[in-house]
Amino acid sequence: MTAIAVADKQKDDKPLAGAGLRGQSAGTTALCTVGKSGTGLTYRGYDITDLAHHAEFEEVAYLLLKGKLPTQSELNDYKHSLKARRGLPPALRRVLEEIPANAHPMDVMRTGCSMLGNLDQELDFAEQEDKTDTLLAMLPAIICYWYRYSHDGVRIDTTCPEQDSIGGYFLEMLTGKAPSELHKKVMHCSLVLYAEHEFNASTFTARVCASTLSDLHSCITAAIGSLRGPLHGGANEAAMEMIERWQTPDEAEAGILQMLANKEKIMGFGHAIYRESDPRNDLIKAWSKKLSEDVGDTHLYAVSERVEAVMKREKNLFCNADFFHASAYHFMGIPTKLFTPIFVMSRVTGWAAHVFEQRANNRIIRPSADYIGPEPQAWLPMAERK
Amino acid sequence: MTAIAVADKQKDDKPLAGAGLRGQSAGTTALCTVGKSGTGLTYRGYDITDLAHHAEFEEVAYLLLKGKLPTQSELNDYKHSLKARRGLPPALRRVLEEIPANAHPMDVMRTGCSMLGNLDQELDFAEQEDKTDTLLAMLPAIICYWYRYSHDGVRIDTTCPEQDSIGGYFLEMLTGKAPSELHKKVMHCSLVLYAEHEFNASTFTARVCASTLSDLHSCITAAIGSLRGPLHGGANEAAMEMIERWQTPDEAEAGILQMLANKEKIMGFGHAIYRESDPRNDLIKAWSKKLSEDVGDTHLYAVSERVEAVMKREKNLFCNADFFHASAYHFMGIPTKLFTPIFVMSRVTGWAAHVFEQRANNRIIRPSADYIGPEPQAWLPMAERK
Repeated sequence: MTAIAVADKQKDDKPLAGAGLRGQSAGTTALCTVGKSGTGLTYRGYDITDLAHHAEFEEVAYLLLKGKLPTQSELNDYKHSLKARRGLPPALRRVLEEIPANAHPMDVMRTGCSMLGNLDQELDFAEQEDKTDTLLAMLPAIICYWYRYSHDGVRIDTTCPEQDSIGGYFLEMLTGKAPSELHKKVMHCSLVLYAEHEFNASTFTARVCASTLSDLHSCITAAIGSLRGPLHGGANEAAMEMIERWQTPDEAEAGILQMLANKEKIMGFGHAIYRESDPRNDLIKAWSKKLSEDVGDTHLYAVSERVEAVMKREKNLFCNADFFHASAYHFMGIPTKLFTPIFVMSRVTGWAAHVFEQRANNRIIRPSADYIGPEPQAWLPMAERK
Repeated sequence: MTAIAVADKQKDDKPLAGAGLRGQSAGTTALCTVGKSGTGLTYRGYDITDLAHHAEFEEVAYLLLKGKLPTQSELNDYKHSLKARRGLPPALRRVLEEIPANAHPMDVMRTGCSMLGNLDQELDFAEQEDKTDTLLAMLPAIICYWYRYSHDGVRIDTTCPEQDSIGGYFLEMLTGKAPSELHKKVMHCSLVLYAEHEFNASTFTARVCASTLSDLHSCITAAIGSLRGPLHGGANEAAMEMIERWQTPDEAEAGILQMLANKEKIMGFGHAIYRESDPRNDLIKAWSKKLSEDVGDTHLYAVSERVEAVMKREKNLFCNADFFHASAYHFMGIPTKLFTPIFVMSRVTGWAAHVFEQRANNRIIRPSADYIGPEPQAWLPMAERK
């Protein structure tokens, strides 16, 4: 059974009371609130709408990692520092060249992060911010270097001093061309929206790993592995694969109705915690509309809007952050299989900030289990086995 | 502050009520009981003492992964299958050659496992046992290939058809010589003792990752990262570094008393769950004694016994599984920094079995957090920041 088939099967099964630690507190955080009444999503008390409208991604990274919004000179220094860290070590480049073109891009991110841990080892927790900044700078380089080498046979120079934002840098590394101002703005918004989301599964993975006092690269590598799962990251990729099947809104409506009749899972809708809406949807949806106009899109945005309307009408389900990300990324020319790696480039800030928090007030995370196996049994010699 | 310094500091801090999910159930398992009254440790109902006395490691791996003890012909087939999987793919060998000699060996294991995920991707959960068997066969090859290449400049052939057990194979790969029968028996016992231990932090990491329906290599890579932490794996390495300072039991006694007076942490004693003894200690201790006699050891075993006696007398603390593992591994000529990678070679069976369980009855593991951060705050324009 494929992962998605298992996911679908589970939706039909009876929910398991108490499983998945739903509603159980696993610790404290000062980083984020999700779905608290009055505010949908805050990072260190700032509303996601304010952050998405006013802040560059690097400002939000600074807020999460260093605890406050930066002054102009702090922000300039921070961006300068990140820019200076983009050159991949030669050994890391050679490792990326060994990864075949048909690899899963999240496996590339996971392996690149893990390999970097061998070359830029965190020897002391006092280095945690420095190692995080290097990871933040290099993750876009890792995916683009592998992608261009394995798909186009090109060894790109990842230093790229022309771009001073992570989003713009990623687009230039990927396409070989300087991105437009519009594209850079969309990337800021997208990376801001994905930066942090409390104790989601990948962040919790990072915290469990951090609770053994392991190093930063182990924690981030582990989190990438969790985000790879189709129940977590990857919803925007699945949404893209769905909407690109349809050429008109009417086709989309018929398609969705058929999928609902077949009880197929529609990715990009609903949320484990938000009940009425995902505060990130309006923000990315507005950018998707602008990009649609900019690119002369004839149908993809209209298809997306119709899917949103039909899902609301038929199932009272709302778009989450992922749904309009699909069309937005597509309009910027980003291959679908690189959508989840962009999530990593952003969420690494939240993951690392949670690792810092866990370390500062740690107890090893070691829950109990309910035993449902066989009773104690006598040793069974080889000759008596069946 | 180093990781160990943080760990020491934490011991002195007041325990955090409810933190670390201690005593909270995070799911069900049929694999293992730890510290239940009457039996210290069972794997699928079999007592660890029976398993350590009677079973080869491959029998226990089969028990954990396939649900029952194998017949002789099933065991023969299983060992034959594992043996056939030892040859590392050329791309993986080249990646290992890029990792410097001063890397942390657990970072090598993590990176090797992650890289293998690019080359031998699990495309469907129906492949989970097959991919696990390949990992089980290759993990010793990964660490030995890197170690011999980076330290001795030798490219070893990892196929090694002469050894039909994982423990014997590891020793031959490491030393280039066929191990003695005694050493092979000790490795069986050691790998059996470390194979499984319920919802410890690394296993729980693997289950959180699995709960997103991610692939096997992501789950095992994540678990390796957690085991790397000094609060989890690595206790036997720390015990070794301590006991090798002392040349006589009296020196050891004076040293331990001084460490206790300084409130230093003594690794290899006590346990998060066991209250009176660790059932694995007697088993590995007996082998350490035999090895001591076999190697003509003049003091290390006696030093270890004295440390055990002083810790019992002074603090009423017992040796856990790690303490006599230190001298046992040392007597077999294993470098201290490879102790935790051996733990990985064994525990990968428990990790994978837990991944299978999680997938078979899954809900995404997504706990809540208690928010302790700032109240909602108005956007702060750049000019007003300090």
